[in-house]
Amino acid sequence: MTPRLMEVRKNVLKQNDVLARGLRDEFRAKNVAVVSLVSSPGSGKTAFLEKTLTLLQPRYRVAALVGDLATENDAARLARSRAPVKQIVTGTVCHLDAMMVRAALDNWLPAPLDFLFIENVGNLVCPSSFDLGEDLRLVLLSVTEGEDKPLKYPTIFNTADIAVITKMDLAEAVEFDAELCHRNIQSVRPGMRILPVSSKTGAGMDVWLDLLTDLREHKLHAADAR
Amino acid sequence: MTPRLMEVRKNVLKQNDVLARGLRDEFRAKNVAVVSLVSSPGSGKTAFLEKTLTLLQPRYRVAALVGDLATENDAARLARSRAPVKQIVTGTVCHLDAMMVRAALDNWLPAPLDFLFIENVGNLVCPSSFDLGEDLRLVLLSVTEGEDKPLKYPTIFNTADIAVITKMDLAEAVEFDAELCHRNIQSVRPGMRILPVSSKTGAGMDVWLDLLTDLREHKLHAADAR
Repeated sequence: MTPRLMEVRKNVLKQNDVLARGLRDEFRAKNVAVVSLVSSPGSGKTAFLEKTLTLLQPRYRVAALVGDLATENDAARLARSRAPVKQIVTGTVCHLDAMMVRAALDNWLPAPLDFLFIENVGNLVCPSSFDLGEDLRLVLLSVTEGEDKPLKYPTIFNTADIAVITKMDLAEAVEFDAELCHRNIQSVRPGMRILPVSSKTGAGMDVWLDLLTDLREHKLHAADAR
Repeated sequence: MTPRLMEVRKNVLKQNDVLARGLRDEFRAKNVAVVSLVSSPGSGKTAFLEKTLTLLQPRYRVAALVGDLATENDAARLARSRAPVKQIVTGTVCHLDAMMVRAALDNWLPAPLDFLFIENVGNLVCPSSFDLGEDLRLVLLSVTEGEDKPLKYPTIFNTADIAVITKMDLAEAVEFDAELCHRNIQSVRPGMRILPVSSKTGAGMDVWLDLLTDLREHKLHAADAR
């Protein structure tokens, strides 16, 4: 990167952080727990999110924002959960930023929400620098991608809170080495929570839902304490 | 993106194109055929490239440059083919550019080459804007990523010459719909050549090697005609 581009980029990031802080304050005031998802293209973000929305719907008010370069395919898939879903089309931009989230929320969702999910553009590099005001950031990694991904894309693992290992139903077929993968995650981000799941079979989703319930209660507690 | 950032980015791209043109002239003068590979993280670029280098070695002089944010893992894997390999560590940059290729080539590979391969950072968005002076750009897509990827990342398919569908040995396990995937590729890039392969079983590699041999002969013919 040229020095000039680096300087401009630093200003853009500073601007994003100010906007993200505003979003975080607003989410706190409205008692909505916000979870974002980042991963490579094809890691199974949308399948995992569809399953999550469907399982949460009976008990909670949920909605999702979903980012993509082109197409509204993901919004259409997620809408099958019957949750309100809005697509953010980014054109050639390789990540969501706080301004896009801000703009998407305006004039949408007047009703109170328990959970808002934000699915980022499929990319293991660019989203890492952009705070979206979320409470929890998941990085998803499918068993088919290779156990070395945490070592090769350390920044995204460092800015996420939980590593979700997806497509566990394919683990055997691709000879996935869980121990090696966990060790690689821990070497990049010691102590990181790891959640193996299969959106297809539903394995691991109970642990994930408990975690979301905890997040929500924690948020409500914090609100009561204010 | 802010207007200021867009303007700076345009200048960076212009600078890259000038450098890429220089690289292309140099590759032509040296009669080396240059092939670059782009894909999501985990699509199997390195496995495909290792297989390619190994198969070409008996008949051709080959070498590879490989880009990653961190680690020299890919270079170590590719070195098993016994071809000369050099890693470009990009730090936080989500793609290779012509300047990085230029810098990596300096003081390296004095001997004549038949083929140079350039493996980009795993990313379906950022590499699309950066010409590296290559003759042929492959976009790889594994059967585990979903048939909709070409629709969601059209730019990268538009800047590539051939779509390589990897991990065909897993097609059945993931219920890969080849017809749908081909249709999606054709709708984004009508007439695009599609090459289904498995680096594990070697399926499709004969077609790929024929294609490389043609590329090399074509390049030599063009040189003779000058």
